[in-house]
Order: sequence, then C-alpha cells, then structure tokens
Amino acid sequence: MTEATHTVKSYEQELEHLRSLMRQMGGLVERQTAQAVKAIVDGDDEAAIEPPELDPEVDELEREAEALAIRILALRSPMAVDLRTIVAALKITGDLERIGDYASSIARRAMKLDMEGGPSLVGLRSMGRLVQDNLRRAIDALANEDRDASVAVWQADAAVDELYTAMFRELMTYMMEDPRNIGTCIHLMFVAKNLERIGDHTTNIAERVYYAVTGEMLPSVRPRGGRGNMASLQS
Amino acid sequence: MTEATHTVKSYEQELEHLRSLMRQMGGLVERQTAQAVKAIVDGDDEAAIEPPELDPEVDELEREAEALAIRILALRSPMAVDLRTIVAALKITGDLERIGDYASSIARRAMKLDMEGGPSLVGLRSMGRLVQDNLRRAIDALANEDRDASVAVWQADAAVDELYTAMFRELMTYMMEDPRNIGTCIHLMFVAKNLERIGDHTTNIAERVYYAVTGEMLPSVRPRGGRGNMASLQS
Repeated sequence: MTEATHTVKSYEQELEHLRSLMRQMGGLVERQTAQAVKAIVDGDDEAAIEPPELDPEVDELEREAEALAIRILALRSPMAVDLRTIVAALKITGDLERIGDYASSIARRAMKLDMEGGPSLVGLRSMGRLVQDNLRRAIDALANEDRDASVAVWQADAAVDELYTAMFRELMTYMMEDPRNIGTCIHLMFVAKNLERIGDHTTNIAERVYYAVTGEMLPSVRPRGGRGNMASLQS
Repeated sequence: MTEATHTVKSYEQELEHLRSLMRQMGGLVERQTAQAVKAIVDGDDEAAIEPPELDPEVDELEREAEALAIRILALRSPMAVDLRTIVAALKITGDLERIGDYASSIARRAMKLDMEGGPSLVGLRSMGRLVQDNLRRAIDALANEDRDASVAVWQADAAVDELYTAMFRELMTYMMEDPRNIGTCIHLMFVAKNLERIGDHTTNIAERVYYAVTGEMLPSVRPRGGRGNMASLQS
C-alpha cells in the first residue's frame, strides 16, 4: 500500500513537473513575444535585447521537457488523458520554441530599423496586441486544460490574418510611392509575416490542447481571414 | 510461445507501419518541394498545381502517424530505440507537414508570378536544388536510420543560408534600381525565405534521426552560413 501510494504520487509529480516545464516555456515565449512587439512598435531598443538572449533557455527547456516525456513514457506507461497530455507536450514544445525564434527574429529587425519618417505602425500595433493576446490565452488554456478557451483561441486567428493582409497592402503602396522606403518596408513585411506565423503556431497549440483534453481533433480547416485580392502576394 | 511470437510480430508490424507512413509522408513532401521549385524556376504553371493539392493528403498522413504512435505507446510500452523512434516520428511529422506548407506557398506564388524581364533566377535555382537535395538525403537517412547521413545533412544547411543571403542582396538591388520590380522581387524574397525555412526543417529532421538512432543530441548550435553585412535584413 505504501509502495503503491508512493509510486502513484511520484508519477503525479512527474506529470506535474512536465506541466511546470511547459508553463515555464510558455511564460518565456510570451515574454519574448511581448518584448519583440514592444521593440518594433515603440522603437524600444532596450526591449529588443531580451528575446534573442532568452532563446538558449527556451531551447534548454524544450530538451528538458522532451527528456522527461520520454522518461515518463518509458517508466510509467501512461494511458488515456495522461498519454495524450505527454504527446501534446512533445508537439507543443516544438511550437513554443518556434514562436520564440520568430520573436527573436522580430527583435533583431527592430534593432536595425530606422523608423524616421517611415510608415505608420498602427496596423502592426493592433496585430502585435492581438497575437500576444491569443498567445497568452493559448498558454492559459494549456495550463488550465481548458477546452472552451482552446476553441476560442483557435477561432481568433482569422482576425490576425485580416490585419496581416491590410498591413501588407499598406506597405506595398508605401514602397511603390517612394523607393527610399523599400528597406524599412521589407523589414516590416517580414515582421508582419513573423507575427502571422506566431499566430499560426498559437493556433496549433490550441488544437493540441483541445485534443489532449477531449481526445477529439478540431476540424482540419479552420476559419481564415484576409483572403482578399492581395492574398496571393502576401500568403 | 505462439502467443508471444504473434505479439512480437504484430508489434514489429506496427513499428514498420509507422515507418512506412513516415516514408510516404516524406515522399509526398519531397514531391511537393520538387514541383514547387520547378514551378518557380522554370515558370511551369502545371507543376504549381500539385503541391497545394497534396496538402490534405500530407495532413491526413500526419494524423494517421500520430494516432498510430499513440496506439503503440499505449499498448506496447516500447523501450529504448523503439521509444525514441516513436517520439522522433511525432516530431518529424510536424517538420514534414510544415515543409509541405512552405512548398505549397511557393507554388501559389509561382502561379501569380510574371517573370517577363524579371531578375535572374540563377541563385534561386541553386538554392532550390540544394534544398531539395538535402531534403531527399534527410528522408533517406530517416528511412535507413543512418547516423552519418543525418550528420552530413545537418552540416549542409550552411550553404543554403549563404545562397539565401546572396539572393536577398541581389533582389534588394533590383528593387532599388526600378520600383516596377517591387512586386516580383517581394514574391521572390518570400520564396527564398520559404526555401530557407524548408532547409531549417530539414536540419531538424536530421537532428531527430541522429537522436533516434544514437540516443545523443547533436550540439544545439549548428554551423551557419550567410551571416554577412546584410544578415540583419534578411534573417
């Protein structure tokens, strides 16, 4: 009895440790994204330093989570929701790591960007806010194993796509009007693209959380915004 | 004895089925990439049709492989190299699916592209060839569980980065010279970026194969090319 209780407790502790690694990773990646958006939208060079600096820590957490997941799989033969949680963890850490990469890429661009007389950043600000907001909600859904929240995040990405399309159109116009804007606009296009990809990975996380909690997959086609005339150019 | 032999055989069959799903997925994604490169470099509109059409099949294989991996984990409690192979499969299918996405994105751009009097595609041709070549070798390394081949693929990505940097520089110059080139050049920049990302995911696959086969991780920092003066703009 004592032995069994001990084993059960230790297994629970391992799962809790895995969840805690995911929460840590989620927190870091949220921080990277927030600082990257701040760096580009507010021209805050200080904020740009942190995201790339956090990358090795995120990578290390991914490796740690994966090693722990493998250990639990090998020693505990988890079933049902536990097994799905571990498989979800293996996939979600990959998404989180990539979100961190995109945030670092945005921050590195911010450091080089001279926005003197550049295009308006209103669209980018809205996009950054929305992407951050969705990411935070996805990470909360993950931490709370919240099915409904994961569906809400999954649906919210269409608005990110719409903002991306509008921004892309604006930047194209700006470049055409004056070729001196090309360098800045290319930077901002890639920043917008990176934000859009962060949105995609956030959606992936939401899909994974939903699957881990329910054992069901969300439909493979999700609602998408921004498929207007310019869709061919910016997709 | 009969019972045990039967179980062992059936377990082996399940693992073989998982490997076969990975090979199928790899083959499809290779095909998507080859057709996408052909579409853009040879202006072959026919070739551009296939990559997006194959996307649902790739997605379906990913779901199938994942469901099978979970079934094997639940029912067979695999150990050591088998367990690592299954975990690698869960991660690699994600990379393959994303490579397919990038190939489709390239193909969709190819369909819209008017290269009449556009920039030279020599750089893109080299990049496309190299990326395809690495992808094929990574998928072979996966199929053959070949440690040395996985290391070679992992090292080869530096050359892709170098070609990307050179192409990016060329396209920037071209846009600056004549703003009428902006639309085409933006397309080509995103194509080059997508190829570079396919290279990154190919490297991830190589790292996963190495880990599955050896139980060791490759160093977290791999050799990189193309970190010249323009690195800030195109990264």
